[in-house]
Amino acid sequence: MTKALKLHRELRGKIEIKPKINVSKENFPLIYTPGIAEPAREISKNPEKSFEYTGRGNNVAIITDGSRTIGVGDSIPEASLPIMEGKALLLKFLAGVDAYPLCLKTKKVQEIIKTIEILSPNFSAFNIEDIQSPKCFAIMEELEKRDLIVFHDDQQGIAIAVLAALFNALNLVGKKLEKARICLGGSGAGGYGIFKILNYIGLKNIIVFDIKGIIFRSRKEDNKYQKEIAKFTNKENLKGGLKEAIKGSDVFIGVTGKAGLLNSSNIKQMRENPIIFAISNPKPEILPREIEKATKDYIYAAGRPDYPNQINNVLVFPGVFKGLLKTRKRMNLELEFKIAKAIASLIKNPTPSYIVPSTFDKRLVKTIVACIKEK
Amino acid sequence: MTKALKLHRELRGKIEIKPKINVSKENFPLIYTPGIAEPAREISKNPEKSFEYTGRGNNVAIITDGSRTIGVGDSIPEASLPIMEGKALLLKFLAGVDAYPLCLKTKKVQEIIKTIEILSPNFSAFNIEDIQSPKCFAIMEELEKRDLIVFHDDQQGIAIAVLAALFNALNLVGKKLEKARICLGGSGAGGYGIFKILNYIGLKNIIVFDIKGIIFRSRKEDNKYQKEIAKFTNKENLKGGLKEAIKGSDVFIGVTGKAGLLNSSNIKQMRENPIIFAISNPKPEILPREIEKATKDYIYAAGRPDYPNQINNVLVFPGVFKGLLKTRKRMNLELEFKIAKAIASLIKNPTPSYIVPSTFDKRLVKTIVACIKEK
Repeated sequence: MTKALKLHRELRGKIEIKPKINVSKENFPLIYTPGIAEPAREISKNPEKSFEYTGRGNNVAIITDGSRTIGVGDSIPEASLPIMEGKALLLKFLAGVDAYPLCLKTKKVQEIIKTIEILSPNFSAFNIEDIQSPKCFAIMEELEKRDLIVFHDDQQGIAIAVLAALFNALNLVGKKLEKARICLGGSGAGGYGIFKILNYIGLKNIIVFDIKGIIFRSRKEDNKYQKEIAKFTNKENLKGGLKEAIKGSDVFIGVTGKAGLLNSSNIKQMRENPIIFAISNPKPEILPREIEKATKDYIYAAGRPDYPNQINNVLVFPGVFKGLLKTRKRMNLELEFKIAKAIASLIKNPTPSYIVPSTFDKRLVKTIVACIKEK
Repeated sequence: MTKALKLHRELRGKIEIKPKINVSKENFPLIYTPGIAEPAREISKNPEKSFEYTGRGNNVAIITDGSRTIGVGDSIPEASLPIMEGKALLLKFLAGVDAYPLCLKTKKVQEIIKTIEILSPNFSAFNIEDIQSPKCFAIMEELEKRDLIVFHDDQQGIAIAVLAALFNALNLVGKKLEKARICLGGSGAGGYGIFKILNYIGLKNIIVFDIKGIIFRSRKEDNKYQKEIAKFTNKENLKGGLKEAIKGSDVFIGVTGKAGLLNSSNIKQMRENPIIFAISNPKPEILPREIEKATKDYIYAAGRPDYPNQINNVLVFPGVFKGLLKTRKRMNLELEFKIAKAIASLIKNPTPSYIVPSTFDKRLVKTIVACIKEK
């Protein structure tokens, strides 16, 4: 049995419910009958009072259907529980947010949306997590129309983390963001989220490829999100696969879910001082030792914590939720961009092994919260 | 501002999510990416493993729609949050169970059932709470058909607590249970639950009344649960109101929700040594000072904790959930009866002010768990 399994078996759950107050004969009539009727009555007259008399103001639900479970793929909702508990643990540990893991036994868009609406009285915000694309986008679109605060970590969280890392990496190699050619692998939640933010800040030189190859205009059987990618990227309307996509790139960003997709010959096709973000989890698209067969002058980041730069949404979501809860604001691309810039500027002197702050950098949450509070 | 409101405002939530382990650089790769993929993979192959690698085995959801909120009545789901948080706090404090308050924004039976099914991967059991009757019965019937462990606290919990108190009270006044005439006020969740257990143990001499008066055979516009009550109670097929119902009773059990419904003249209509359980919350049907205008020889219990005997489901639900989680058994009338007997026998020498154990009696949870574990 591996270390991870052993730890999970010992813990039997990484989070627990904790009373904020010890029960005594004196306070029992206040926290239960009959005193409990008083906050109930106040809230019944004005639901806003639930933020004053209950934990709702600090409560987030982490919602998944298990359709994109890490290391497994499309699975049963139960399989996502360890991950959701891990996120809840991190949200509390890093940002003091109370997060409730809720893995839903349905794969249907309408049922997921309905369930979230039905659960809304208990929470201030929802974290959409590990749901297959393009279903996850449809869910986000529907939820954003409603009076709900939602954040799609796999899309928006990773986009913010990537952009922060990109600012510092390009700066280090002395290349300009506007001119950099970016090869983006993946058109799922992460890929689309990264495309959206890169497009928002006006980058034109992007090639996106996915399992079907390079995304180009009039490619067949694309969903509306892939069509949107086609419209705003790949000016030359290139066709082909990884080789054609990566050729001449300054930056490779991989959210493909394909372990070992790249090899040193792909790196050789890139421009000098390549920037490689191989952030698929649990296994990256390429490891440093493979890159080094092609060049020694590169910047590398993975999604997992055992390499120098971890580009992972854990840099982002604790602060984002704390900020959203405090302000009750909605997330948008402008805010994503601002947060990415703020995270990047936490590093005064970037080096190839220090382009993003550590997960444990205490300034992260404060900085993101301050960003969200602004104006 | 009252004490209860002040406390709730200070706490802003009576429970919180607590990490069971501190995050460190060493354990981070085990509790999050990449290690987290291992329990996910194990569970994906066998959902039963979710009881081994996550907190599911100790997780209960407390479900309400706010349609029977204490002190308010039919209200918005948010109004029930303080109560649900109180129950969650007590479940952890008294029994170590992790309970998640979930107030649903729907009043529809089918949507409530569907939501519970969709949420089932995260929990071992569901506590149905503060849902209007007869809707709550329909929900329980449907849920019991499914592969879910459910407990309807307002029905089953209160029935167990009442029966335990009744054993000791009748014993004290030297009356036999089989012969006692019982006047039961209320045909909602509590009333029906108490009727069910009294009927299960074979009592024949029961009169039930509700807002429409005494329940009798062929009464008009009764729901199927009231018709069931009519079939098995009120042998004489009496008609009338409280006066006719309580006349000649040995025991009055009130779960009417009507504060001050009874006065001393009603008590005078009862037999000698009357037993009065005025357990509506937050305000009882009658207070001791009113009873004492009629007699000094009585046994009294209320639902709230500021009178000698508290008949409240808080005596029951912590132990019941701990037991159900440990055994993954279903609740049934036989088990309700056994638990009631076991609770009653915790008191070796009952007195008029000591017919049920205190909420803080540490033997309660152990005794109930042992009961559920038996055979």
